[in-house]
Amino acid sequence: MKIHLVGVGGGHPDQITVQAVARLREVDVFLVADKGSSVGDLAEARAEILRRHVPGSPRVIQVPDPERDRRPSDYGTAVVDWHDARARAYEKVLLDLDPDVVVGFLVWGDPALYDSTIRVVERVRDFGTVDIDFDVTPGISSVSMLAAAHRLVLNRIGGPIVITTGRALLHDIGAGADNIVVMLDGKLTCRELVGTGTWDIHWGANLGTDDERLVSGPLDACIGEIERARADVKAEHGWVMDTYVLRTRV
Amino acid sequence: MKIHLVGVGGGHPDQITVQAVARLREVDVFLVADKGSSVGDLAEARAEILRRHVPGSPRVIQVPDPERDRRPSDYGTAVVDWHDARARAYEKVLLDLDPDVVVGFLVWGDPALYDSTIRVVERVRDFGTVDIDFDVTPGISSVSMLAAAHRLVLNRIGGPIVITTGRALLHDIGAGADNIVVMLDGKLTCRELVGTGTWDIHWGANLGTDDERLVSGPLDACIGEIERARADVKAEHGWVMDTYVLRTRV
Repeated sequence: MKIHLVGVGGGHPDQITVQAVARLREVDVFLVADKGSSVGDLAEARAEILRRHVPGSPRVIQVPDPERDRRPSDYGTAVVDWHDARARAYEKVLLDLDPDVVVGFLVWGDPALYDSTIRVVERVRDFGTVDIDFDVTPGISSVSMLAAAHRLVLNRIGGPIVITTGRALLHDIGAGADNIVVMLDGKLTCRELVGTGTWDIHWGANLGTDDERLVSGPLDACIGEIERARADVKAEHGWVMDTYVLRTRV
Repeated sequence: MKIHLVGVGGGHPDQITVQAVARLREVDVFLVADKGSSVGDLAEARAEILRRHVPGSPRVIQVPDPERDRRPSDYGTAVVDWHDARARAYEKVLLDLDPDVVVGFLVWGDPALYDSTIRVVERVRDFGTVDIDFDVTPGISSVSMLAAAHRLVLNRIGGPIVITTGRALLHDIGAGADNIVVMLDGKLTCRELVGTGTWDIHWGANLGTDDERLVSGPLDACIGEIERARADVKAEHGWVMDTYVLRTRV
């Protein structure tokens, strides 16, 4: 069974490559994770991508997303268990399809960055019950969107960039990172660094959508504005996705 | 003067977002760096992007690229001097244009990653002789292309990614990096790590073009194949652009 994993960028329906559009048009059936009502306008954004770029009305199957342990004692194991439950849910749907259909997954951002779709599809393949041949089409990541919105070059001249998560941020700073992109940080972990006087932040939420918010400047001076913007977006839309660059002042 | 910096992805003319295409169509004059005859098919790839996506024949001005010191005693200073020379060359061209024209720069990959265009345009703005208002449209980076070609997730679960250059690679490994994307490495610095037995590599050259080459596996076993593929591509096209992921085996 042919499966296309297609990166569709970050929210705006036109932030998708011409190549990715061609890929979507080869798909017979789209599988999408049904995360319940909490992400209503994300589901609508996905529908808009299909309406705008794929002629006809492609078949879309909602696959209920398994419950996830949000306070696990072991983060790595909990993620693996959840990938497994998700893989079983997809396997069930794929087994009901004709082996000749082409299946597609729309992946927000870039499938290579902090997204589980590749791992889950590999898991299904490894079960051995469905003969899977998949490919990946890259998308614009939230990292690229954040940088573009702030007109930033992410690297300093010749220097490295660390991309990490809120969970690992303080550890990575302890190891010497001073030019960092932080993703998946529901807790705004950079608050722990307020008062040190050494960090600048370039923050963005709901990038690429009509509700995009941007704040940029010294962390100590900006943190209040960021907290307020974050709360506002969440109150208005039910969800907020934010990403930020932290770098020491040079 | 309005300037659009537009990321156009990595070589295939359709690896550009629908949004970026719309931006290109707003442009009256494209400025492109004339790097001489050494990169003939890159210039052709750029022309193909315009032919395919921009109706009519937009005006293109070739700006001679200043000489660059390839063996500087101080890398950072040499890069800054070169940015300065480049900025002066662009300033000269911009001063000759009507202030109402919309200027465009096509940027390979993503303008946020190891590309000088943003810095150079800021430099021109800071000269104060041209009133510049610029924006940035993100593109698919070679990092995303490499990952997609190998169907890789760049992060390990919850873990960080270090993006760095060949020049800084050994330093970053010394600081603890074990999951690394290496760019701008004309010397295949990973050869220094052969024999340690701990690294896997996922390597790609001329990604997204018809001449794409991919090699993946244990570094010790793959390095010979990578060296040969690299030499072949260079002999055939006069240039090779490669990127790779290095990670310790887990």
